[in-house]
Amino acid sequence: MSGNSMGLLFTVTSFGESHGPGIGCVVDGCPPGMALCEADIQAELDRRKPGTSRHVTQRREPDTVEILSGVYEGRTTGTPIALLIRNTDQRSRDYGNIADTFRPGHADYTYWHKYGIRDPRGGGRSSARETAVRVAAGAIAKKWLHEQYGIVIRGHMTQIGDIEIPFRSWDVVNDNPFFAADESKVDELEAYMDSIRKSLDSVGARLRVVAENVPVGWGEPVYDRLDADIAYAMMNINAVKGVEIGAGFGCVTQRGSEHGDELTPEGFASNHAGGVLGGISTGQDIDVSMAIKPTSSIAQPRRSIDKAGEAIMVETHGRHDPCVGIRATPIAEAMLALVLIDHALRHRAQCGDVQVATPRIPGRIG
Amino acid sequence: MSGNSMGLLFTVTSFGESHGPGIGCVVDGCPPGMALCEADIQAELDRRKPGTSRHVTQRREPDTVEILSGVYEGRTTGTPIALLIRNTDQRSRDYGNIADTFRPGHADYTYWHKYGIRDPRGGGRSSARETAVRVAAGAIAKKWLHEQYGIVIRGHMTQIGDIEIPFRSWDVVNDNPFFAADESKVDELEAYMDSIRKSLDSVGARLRVVAENVPVGWGEPVYDRLDADIAYAMMNINAVKGVEIGAGFGCVTQRGSEHGDELTPEGFASNHAGGVLGGISTGQDIDVSMAIKPTSSIAQPRRSIDKAGEAIMVETHGRHDPCVGIRATPIAEAMLALVLIDHALRHRAQCGDVQVATPRIPGRIG
Amino acid sequence: MSGNSMGLLFTVTSFGESHGPGIGCVVDGCPPGMALCEADIQAELDRRKPGTSRHVTQRREPDTVEILSGVYEGRTTGTPIALLIRNTDQRSRDYGNIADTFRPGHADYTYWHKYGIRDPRGGGRSSARETAVRVAAGAIAKKWLHEQYGIVIRGHMTQIGDIEIPFRSWDVVNDNPFFAADESKVDELEAYMDSIRKSLDSVGARLRVVAENVPVGWGEPVYDRLDADIAYAMMNINAVKGVEIGAGFGCVTQRGSEHGDELTPEGFASNHAGGVLGGISTGQDIDVSMAIKPTSSIAQPRRSIDKAGEAIMVETHGRHDPCVGIRATPIAEAMLALVLIDHALRHRAQCGDVQVATPRIPGRIG
Amino acid sequence: MSGNSMGLLFTVTSFGESHGPGIGCVVDGCPPGMALCEADIQAELDRRKPGTSRHVTQRREPDTVEILSGVYEGRTTGTPIALLIRNTDQRSRDYGNIADTFRPGHADYTYWHKYGIRDPRGGGRSSARETAVRVAAGAIAKKWLHEQYGIVIRGHMTQIGDIEIPFRSWDVVNDNPFFAADESKVDELEAYMDSIRKSLDSVGARLRVVAENVPVGWGEPVYDRLDADIAYAMMNINAVKGVEIGAGFGCVTQRGSEHGDELTPEGFASNHAGGVLGGISTGQDIDVSMAIKPTSSIAQPRRSIDKAGEAIMVETHGRHDPCVGIRATPIAEAMLALVLIDHALRHRAQCGDVQVATPRIPGRIG
Repeated sequence: MSGNSMGLLFTVTSFGESHGPGIGCVVDGCPPGMALCEADIQAELDRRKPGTSRHVTQRREPDTVEILSGVYEGRTTGTPIALLIRNTDQRSRDYGNIADTFRPGHADYTYWHKYGIRDPRGGGRSSARETAVRVAAGAIAKKWLHEQYGIVIRGHMTQIGDIEIPFRSWDVVNDNPFFAADESKVDELEAYMDSIRKSLDSVGARLRVVAENVPVGWGEPVYDRLDADIAYAMMNINAVKGVEIGAGFGCVTQRGSEHGDELTPEGFASNHAGGVLGGISTGQDIDVSMAIKPTSSIAQPRRSIDKAGEAIMVETHGRHDPCVGIRATPIAEAMLALVLIDHALRHRAQCGDVQVATPRIPGRIG
Repeated sequence: MSGNSMGLLFTVTSFGESHGPGIGCVVDGCPPGMALCEADIQAELDRRKPGTSRHVTQRREPDTVEILSGVYEGRTTGTPIALLIRNTDQRSRDYGNIADTFRPGHADYTYWHKYGIRDPRGGGRSSARETAVRVAAGAIAKKWLHEQYGIVIRGHMTQIGDIEIPFRSWDVVNDNPFFAADESKVDELEAYMDSIRKSLDSVGARLRVVAENVPVGWGEPVYDRLDADIAYAMMNINAVKGVEIGAGFGCVTQRGSEHGDELTPEGFASNHAGGVLGGISTGQDIDVSMAIKPTSSIAQPRRSIDKAGEAIMVETHGRHDPCVGIRATPIAEAMLALVLIDHALRHRAQCGDVQVATPRIPGRIG
Repeated sequence: MSGNSMGLLFTVTSFGESHGPGIGCVVDGCPPGMALCEADIQAELDRRKPGTSRHVTQRREPDTVEILSGVYEGRTTGTPIALLIRNTDQRSRDYGNIADTFRPGHADYTYWHKYGIRDPRGGGRSSARETAVRVAAGAIAKKWLHEQYGIVIRGHMTQIGDIEIPFRSWDVVNDNPFFAADESKVDELEAYMDSIRKSLDSVGARLRVVAENVPVGWGEPVYDRLDADIAYAMMNINAVKGVEIGAGFGCVTQRGSEHGDELTPEGFASNHAGGVLGGISTGQDIDVSMAIKPTSSIAQPRRSIDKAGEAIMVETHGRHDPCVGIRATPIAEAMLALVLIDHALRHRAQCGDVQVATPRIPGRIG
Repeated sequence: MSGNSMGLLFTVTSFGESHGPGIGCVVDGCPPGMALCEADIQAELDRRKPGTSRHVTQRREPDTVEILSGVYEGRTTGTPIALLIRNTDQRSRDYGNIADTFRPGHADYTYWHKYGIRDPRGGGRSSARETAVRVAAGAIAKKWLHEQYGIVIRGHMTQIGDIEIPFRSWDVVNDNPFFAADESKVDELEAYMDSIRKSLDSVGARLRVVAENVPVGWGEPVYDRLDADIAYAMMNINAVKGVEIGAGFGCVTQRGSEHGDELTPEGFASNHAGGVLGGISTGQDIDVSMAIKPTSSIAQPRRSIDKAGEAIMVETHGRHDPCVGIRATPIAEAMLALVLIDHALRHRAQCGDVQVATPRIPGRIG
């Protein structure tokens, strides 16, 4: 594979550029017989869609998905499911002035050096627009995991720039533009984001994604550990610079007597492991956090060079998210779903018939 | 692949249990013609070897490696290189009392549930002993990367429990038992580790690994990004709970105007990116940090359950590292080497002949 | 991968059903910088297109290809190339009567048992319509191989049913409906095929495909041998039941003194090896033959069963090729191109810089 | 993967050279809980072992296998099973004189050109000695397939040079040195092989391998068809030049009315398909044939060149099989087992719970 596929048994192969005819993917390995229609996928796409509030890019894309194959009479057939999202709002003129320069913090520079050719229209393949594909594929995975195992995958922002956002309730996450789990923080966040935009700057973020009801036993040690594949999947989202499982970097100052989650007949007494031990799910919640860098494209003048290596100043105008982290919540959920379904299938292949006498301990967040 | 191979073109397939006949791997994809002998590998293995100070496990393993194939008259032939390390110090009696119980924070529980069978001797496959294999395979990768590109890969501890260890100099890292880059901290660390051991406890750690002289252009977006594969590789090391590239979680509170590394005709002005933009290397240092949890096996009594689900108390005696993070430094270096060589080969396959007119900008740590 | 991708470095992921919205693929791994437009692909598709003579299916499909991604300003960018061919002539009524029965020799029976669900419209995914995708992807591979190495890949029919077709000249192959390399045989073949159709029957075929100018050294022993990957690629074409390299089954009665191709300073003295020794190309022509079974769908009544397991008689009417082998020639060429480009890239990855002092011996057909 | 692994879920990674320290493999993906010991594997190895009759190479190798990992208390644990066979009879002097020349029909030439380095000791990696590894890994696969599904995999020679060997009975196959299923042919074969040896020549062969009791539904269209993976597996055996499924090349002259196997409530009426339709198993016997070229290494003088490209004459003395096809029977059985177990696991992953109402039709050989 040349880098645009992920998953061994539930494989997503992605294609498309920001300003080309469209983006999409082929999902190979979805088990047959599951009810599936475009509306199932569209619901998730609409959560990530641009233009939904003033705090995200104002590009107008309906992100309408078409299922090209793999579904017959409303059910998956076991054959590849191809999804296509046509690009409609391609204002390439916004980007024309940057074709010969490199934006600080942007993939312009590396794509140019790697391929010797570069599609400057909206960042081409490096655009975060590709993440719509992940959300679409993830919607299929989410549906199957929920139907087969009752798995629920949800995310929320835990920090935007300097503002920490505590967890209050899942119920409010989809009702505010920040995927905040505490609605009392929304006004503060609105004002904060307005000030960032006014200063022609952008800001980083931190988010968390949780999968509940994952059975014990998923994950393939020693390399394709469940947490290793999660780290891969999260780090391959545009702009992510750090990933944590469970206690994450907090474990550095923990003692073993604190970190190691005790077991009781009623379940684990805590979840510092984040639902994974030895690379295999414990039956507790899978608990993942990640850091997302501030948007690279800002309207302030910055030092850079052009293709000839000459010093220039660059300002990036156009329609950019002032905090790319905000719309990353549904993307991170999708990525977690893609990892989990792949390991569900791998586990079914290898250990399908293993029966263990011990009662399975229900996981719970500590 | 069932989880014990990593790398697409430079593929390491690992085998072996802590107390079985031995551990080892097959390295498939090493380019032909490189000088290689057992001493090249042994030098790296000796850095990770148990029993080198009182701060690590006292298990006595010489970790002597045998090259079984793939080398003829001192040169690699392009065929698979099989490496074997026999286990010699297998005191299985140390572990006999835990066969029917689960240690908090340990993979006992998940292996049992996954496979329905469990090798209790020293943790079996889940033992950190497997990491010797990575160091051995990584030694081959390191050598090739250095010979072909002058790449240097080095790591050092940045924190052990509550004690932060600043970076002073690479020169001292291999001269103290903590892989500390500041020798003035060694006495404090010795005392700290002694106190941890006396309290029958263990502690977490944080380490950093850096690759210098990596060419611009390595990494396969959009999924097999260089940083995504690094995150996968680091998170699949036993006990790692978090991974960062460049600024890592520090980017959450950064502004775009601070985080985005400016370019100048003399090079990048900073390295918050950690050497990767858009999933492709920039030519700067690849800069990775990770968090390692405290050792699970501690001699304190802890609550747990047995296979029947009954409440018990567990104490783990035996020869365990009080801080597994310490010996992780050479392992993390090896993993970074394995990711880099795989991407070096992938890049050579896809873009071998691309020539870009722009002068390449030398990277430097900001 | 769940079976719909082929190639490690030049990866084709196929999707689509005979009577769904369309068919297509994602080509991941095409090197950047190659000139490519839809016309390059269309030319190959037109050679396989249905309805070009009375001896093939009369389904009317223009098979117009759209490039959805991976090409910018007429050049490949190194990112995935997605291709889409919309289905236009979907006369599903032709197939409606077979939804609950199984046609002898057809994949109906196995798809139903495997997936528990079946798309009866034109055979769904099992339709030979999918092979258009291979021809489209193969056109890209062919172009690159020709531009980089001067490789020419051509095929011709060597037998249709009882009629053997000797090789006279490549020049006439594309000028008759049978891909025959001897135009003096065309009248006989026309009459033969007319008689097969009149008898409501179908017939098998044999074809040969040759690649010229392949460099010495491609192929990855010991499993991913060049000839093993060719055998896989040819056998995965619908209806192929046998594959030969070089002397093929003729080698059974050969002596070693006859079969082993002698070497001379001017080149090999013969090519019984078919251009592959030890799984690696020799520099001679790659020479492959295959057997293609007669079309399963025939208008004669045949014994079968229905989904309830009851005995029935089945006749298949509709628009079927009386000899599916005829249109297989461009498909086999495409498959050979896909295998060769993948091994070209794999070789470049592993052995890119190997220089051997010995003069390379030009291959030639014995 | 760099060519020395096969199988997606049951993965065999092979290593070793003819005259190095040893050969072996890592088997990753064997389901946990199966009883396994060295004797299970040794029994199959002994069938392939050199030196068992005067008609095969006289090299003395006990081919004793050691299980290095993956088995605990006599059961597979689900972790990688590493197998090691030490080389003991390495008479490298036999081969010393050929280090600078190329033997006609041998991989010397291509290895040299590919890798720029060559292990001349007994052919190094290109030696048929590597096939012992396949037999060892295949023994594990065979055992699992038999225990889980009652699958029986057996092979027999159908032709050696000019002598066809009809099928009479499986019972006699292992009781004669030729794996002949008709003992009345053994005397003729003995005399024939003696004459071949006396003439300092070698001869080709044809063999057949059959798997009984394979369930309907295995195989992953459209590329990883069961028959495509079988073709790959057989063609990657040293010296195989052709592969057939079912009617094979015989289908060229068949009519559709003859080839397409009719279905009846009692089962299929014939098995021209060879047990595979649309790339998926039908429940009938999987029936595969292959052609094996005559041994390249013969004692007659033959024209060749040396590394400088100069004309020379080459005679190969040493201990070679006069018909490499003979010992290929257990190898072909092993390869079929490896393909089947991989598809068994893939099927279990994707379609584990599909239940089809139709009664499954027992397959039978037509």
